[in-house]
Order: sequence, then structure tokens, then C-alpha cells
Amino acid sequence: MLTPSSVVTAQALPEAGQMRAAPTAGGLPEALQPGFLIAHYQLSGAGAQLAERAAALAVEQSVEMPLAGIADAGLRARVVARVGALDVASGRANLHLAEETVGQDPAQLLNMLFGNCSLQDDVTLLGVTLSAVFRARFPGSRFGIDGLRQKLGAPARPLTASALKPQGLPPADLARLAGRLARAGIDLIKDDHGIANQHSAPFAERVPAVQAAIAVANRETGRHTLYAPSLSGDAQEVTRQLDLLADEGVSMALACPFLLGVSRFAELTRHRHPVALMAHPALAGSPRIAPECLLGDLFPLFGADAVIFPNHGGRFSWSRTRCLTLAERIRSPGLTGRGALPIPAGGMQVERVEEMLDCYGRDVVLLIGGNLLAAPDLDHRARQFVDAVARWPASPTAGAAP
Amino acid sequence: MLTPSSVVTAQALPEAGQMRAAPTAGGLPEALQPGFLIAHYQLSGAGAQLAERAAALAVEQSVEMPLAGIADAGLRARVVARVGALDVASGRANLHLAEETVGQDPAQLLNMLFGNCSLQDDVTLLGVTLSAVFRARFPGSRFGIDGLRQKLGAPARPLTASALKPQGLPPADLARLAGRLARAGIDLIKDDHGIANQHSAPFAERVPAVQAAIAVANRETGRHTLYAPSLSGDAQEVTRQLDLLADEGVSMALACPFLLGVSRFAELTRHRHPVALMAHPALAGSPRIAPECLLGDLFPLFGADAVIFPNHGGRFSWSRTRCLTLAERIRSPGLTGRGALPIPAGGMQVERVEEMLDCYGRDVVLLIGGNLLAAPDLDHRARQFVDAVARWPASPTAGAAP
Repeated sequence: MLTPSSVVTAQALPEAGQMRAAPTAGGLPEALQPGFLIAHYQLSGAGAQLAERAAALAVEQSVEMPLAGIADAGLRARVVARVGALDVASGRANLHLAEETVGQDPAQLLNMLFGNCSLQDDVTLLGVTLSAVFRARFPGSRFGIDGLRQKLGAPARPLTASALKPQGLPPADLARLAGRLARAGIDLIKDDHGIANQHSAPFAERVPAVQAAIAVANRETGRHTLYAPSLSGDAQEVTRQLDLLADEGVSMALACPFLLGVSRFAELTRHRHPVALMAHPALAGSPRIAPECLLGDLFPLFGADAVIFPNHGGRFSWSRTRCLTLAERIRSPGLTGRGALPIPAGGMQVERVEEMLDCYGRDVVLLIGGNLLAAPDLDHRARQFVDAVARWPASPTAGAAP
Repeated sequence: MLTPSSVVTAQALPEAGQMRAAPTAGGLPEALQPGFLIAHYQLSGAGAQLAERAAALAVEQSVEMPLAGIADAGLRARVVARVGALDVASGRANLHLAEETVGQDPAQLLNMLFGNCSLQDDVTLLGVTLSAVFRARFPGSRFGIDGLRQKLGAPARPLTASALKPQGLPPADLARLAGRLARAGIDLIKDDHGIANQHSAPFAERVPAVQAAIAVANRETGRHTLYAPSLSGDAQEVTRQLDLLADEGVSMALACPFLLGVSRFAELTRHRHPVALMAHPALAGSPRIAPECLLGDLFPLFGADAVIFPNHGGRFSWSRTRCLTLAERIRSPGLTGRGALPIPAGGMQVERVEEMLDCYGRDVVLLIGGNLLAAPDLDHRARQFVDAVARWPASPTAGAAP
């Protein structure tokens, strides 16, 4: 039986060489207390007053009222957050938050970790340490790396993905594009996260058209390319979309946890039709939540089977070290025993395939969108991408054997 | 008939004296183009390359692929974001985003405004300018200042609010507390935003108990104190909670748009039982979205009738100027013709009532929680609060006549 002492450490690792200059990751290791989780913070500017600032934050992130107003000592001990390990030199501080204040709602977990203090500029959330029993309150990755590999018939090699875009194309054009990408051998074809339910390509028209085009290509190639349509809208609309995925036999979907709301995202795992979930980080880029924590630990905990993040060297500024650490966190098995697939993306080019695979290894999905779509010959370029992935590793020493 | 030329300017105003040092508010004024909205950004560090950086952001926040890959000139003109006014000295840049890429989904509006670029550290969203026709796609404040005043039987005076806390109290204790606050004459009694659906006070037990206690007090006092329970959880759970509010005749609710998801928040306005919505800023404190835009413009656009924000001089660091500008934005009438009520909060004390009312005027709800709850005599302290508000203005020149 799992007990709170079965600690699964989910905290972010330090970004090498950046701890002093930009300490946005890395929490102080500390043992869990029964019935409490640990939230790891960076409190900038507190200096020698770190203990005092941490104590104020402990009140802010739990009872949010003067402790003098809570007469019941038992209640205080049960629910008030406790200050844990402190490191004055780095400004890092741990708070122990009562699991009872979270319950089992993903949004309430975020609320306790970073609700009010999202409004306090000196606070950065670095990571969380959660007991195995507590983690079991959340869905976790249900398909994960192995499940997705099985769906795709690709037990060991690195995987490929591309995106249907631009916004504004009608369903027939998106379907044609999907068919070409599938025939070239791309494993996962996702809607651009900017394609929602606009009148140019309504979900109910787009999904059957794209799914059908991919099915035709799969019959030609013998491959198992999957379509991940983008879920969006209010709760009723998303339910209608999931129902349509069931009708059409679509077994994967793209969703943005911060746009949908993280509780709604986790709820997707409870629909009668099981879909693998690809999480997109739109709106989730607060500079004061470490991505290792939010994208690396929490998105898979809330049900993501694959997580998209901005790769180094593209249009975004995350370092190679941060991306590698993040990929490692995404892959680390949760309580379901399944890790999720990291999907580095954002301005990637086919010429970087070997370098990226040398960097991330084989348990990765390389997502290349615009660089394929803007090529003079899309089919050729997409095959180049698929072939470059198939050829890896160029030398047996460069990566794990396929 | 409303046309796109009926411009409702919803952009944030500059924070006086801070434009150069910390330009987190204030967009460049510019006329709308038909079928496009304006997103106002600050692009730090672009310098003389501002036009180039803005052009890259325009691609990022619309089609997200090289323009060379979009052969159809008509499509490019329809959906690609356009660079508008630029000011190299301040780094401010306007983008014109196609309304067609948003549709009518609140989350998709946030996605287009700040989805991917939430991951780009040099981008701050300052504000939005939306046509009246576009604004009509969203619910807006349905009760607003006048509607809430009518419910409360308080046509002109400033309003009072307090919070039920701490987390961990059982329903009977929360109900007893609510009864005392209502008997003292507090207008709005909300759950602490940290009270969700924990086992210590499940929603289904807490809400009837608190509502009944307030009803008893209202019969004694002849007042119309309202209860705003906190909605939380996934879509199914929130629906059950709204159904319970209908059964119990509760006509107001607290909700956190960033925890629920903004589309789910807006969807609350379409439930068969109409509840006035008090929006809480938990998780919504990104330092790279100006609160004047997010809390001031977008939360009321998505259906908030009242908006809580961290007051100056409390536990949060927003300036008096920012708070005043924000309150003004919250109050400004949307297309429904109704402005929402600003609710400054966070470490407020009864001794500050006069100063706060002199600052905000009478169309405000003062929210004081912990300072009442921690007092030796809660009932006396709550009456002090209500009396101080009723006494205002101390001198006829200090504020608007009641």
C-alpha cells in the first residue's frame, strides 16, 4: 500500500549555472510531513527577512487571515501552511501546504500553490513535492510514452509531428494537407493551437474531413498516423467535441490546460471515449512559475500524455539546459507508471533533426510545422523530416540503439 | 445598428510617472480596422528593431508559420495579424488581430492576445481595443453596479463585503460567522477563495447552511445581505453547484476566471439560474498582462459584475494610481450598459475606510476579511466597519453626495 512516506519528488532541478543570476528553478530538498505537500518558492529581495516573508506567504497561501483570529489550535495545526526549509543566500523557501486544503481538484491545487501569490511580484513557484497517495488523487498520464508508441506502431524510434495551419483554411484544405503529411509518414498531426472553432473551419466539419483524409493515407502507407484536433470553448462545447471524437474514432486531442482551465483539462480523461491528451502551453508562460513544475510535473499529473514546449534555438528563449531538464521531468513516470512524451517545438527546422535527437534521445516527438508548410515541395520536405528521424542515430555512439 | 466604427476603447491608461520606468500599462491610441481588434503590447529590448519584432509577433499571434507558406493572398489579408502603431522610444506596438481568428470564445480571445507570447519574456500585453460589435459576442456584466445595488437595496452608498474563513471550518461554524456578519450589516458575504469543495465544508452542506443563516439575519435586520459562495472544480461539479444555488435561491457567486478557465467563467452566465458574478484574480497575476486589461476590461467583458483586486497599501504591491485606474476600468460601462463594481481587498483595515472611500468614491465595495475576523469582538468590529462606510463622506467636500 502506498503511504505518504512513498515520496515522489516532483520538484524542478536547478538550471545549471543560472541559480544565482536567474533562480527560476530548483527547490530545497526536504522530507514530506504526513498530510502535507511541499511547495518550493523563490522569494526575491527578502534577504535576512526570509523567514518572516515565508511566514507571511504561508498565511497568504492557506487561511489568508491573521492567525490570532483562529482560536482553535487543532484547526491551525491542520490547515495553516508551515514554513519549511529556508536558504537565505538564494532566497529559496519551502512551504508545507495541507493536502486537505486542496482536496482533489487540479485548479484548487494551483490555487493553493500560486493563486494569491501570482499577484505578488517577489514570489516564484519553483516546484512541488507530492506524496504518492496525494498524486493518486489526479488522473496522471493514461497512455503515456508506451501507450502512444503502441497506437503508432513505433515501439522504439523517435516520433514526428506536424501541425495543420494557417488559421482561416477551410476544412477541405486542412484535410488535404493532413493527407499529404500522413502519406509522408508523420506520426502525429495536430491542429494548430490557434485553430479553434472559427467559422472558417468549424470543429464539426473539420474533424471528420481531416480524420478521413488521414485514414485514407494510413491505408496506403500501412502506418498509424494519428490526428489530434484542438479542443476549445466552454464546457458544453468541449463535451460536444469529445462526443464527436468518439463518433469519428479520433483517439487523440490537443488541449491548452490554461485556456480550458486545469480542472476541465483533467476532466477530459473521464469522458466515455478515451483520448490521449497533448497539452499545449498557451497562456501558461508566467515568468514566475518554473516550467519544470507547471509543464513538467503538473500537466502530466493532470492527465497529459504528451507536452509541447518551446525548444531552445527557436523563437523562444528557453535554454538548452532548461529544455533538457523539462523533457526529463515530462518523461518521468507518475503514479500510473507512465511518463509523458516531450514535444519540443517552435520554429524548428528539418536540418536540426539530428542535433535535436542527439539532445533529447529517442523518447521524444519532434514537432515541425511551418518549416514543412513553407517549403516549395511540402511532400518532399515532410519525407526529408521523416527520413532524418528514421536515420538517427547517425553513428551508434550518438544515441540509444533503436 | 452598431458597426465596427462604434469604437469602445478598452485599453489601459498609463500609470502616471511610471511609463518609462515600468511601462506595464498604456497602449498607443489607434483607429480600428474593420474586422480587426487591436492588441497593445510592450516589447522590451527591441529598440530600433521594433518594427521587425512586432512583425514576428504578428505572425506568432495569428498564423504561426512563415508567410511564404501561405500562397493565398486573400487568406493572408484576412487572418494574418497586422502591425499597427509603433513607438520605438517606449517599445510600445499595436497589432491588429483578425476578429475571425477569435470567433466568440473568451479563451480563444486570450489565446490570440497572449497564448504563445506568454512564453516570450519580452512581451507584455497592455490593453485591447475592441469594436462594439465584437464586444457583443461576449456576455458582459449582466447585473453590474445598478443591478447589484438593487439586489442590496442600496441605491447610492458605498458597499461592504467580508469573507468566510479560514479553510477547515465546518459548515455550522461558517454559517454562524455569516449570520454575525450579516447582522452587523455587511452587504456581501463571500466564501474565502481558498474554500473550495474540501471535505471540511462540502459545497452541498455549506451553501444551504450559510444561506439559511444569512436569511435569518436579513429577517431580523430588514437588510438584503447576499451570500457569494465560491464555485470550483471541473465542469460537471460547477454545474451541480449552480443547480444547488438555484435550489437554495442564492443569487451571487464567487469564481476565479483563471482557475475555472475564462470560457467556463463566461458560461456561468448562461445557466438557467441567473447569478451575479464576483470575479477573483487568483492565478491571474502575470506580471506580463496589465491588470487594467485583464481584470479591468476582460473580466467584466466575460461576465463579471464585480471584480476583486489587491488594494494599495495592503499585502500587495500595486500602486494607488494603478488601483484607481483599474477601478475606473472596472466601472466603465460595457455594451450591456452596465459597469461592474470594483472590490479593493487584501489586508484592509477598518481604520482605512474613510481614506479608501475618498480614494475610490461611492461606487465601490470595500472588502475587509481578516481584520474583522481577528478582532476580539467580531460583531463590534463589523458594525464599526458598516458604520464607518455609512458615515462617509465625513465632510460634504470629500466625496459625492450620498
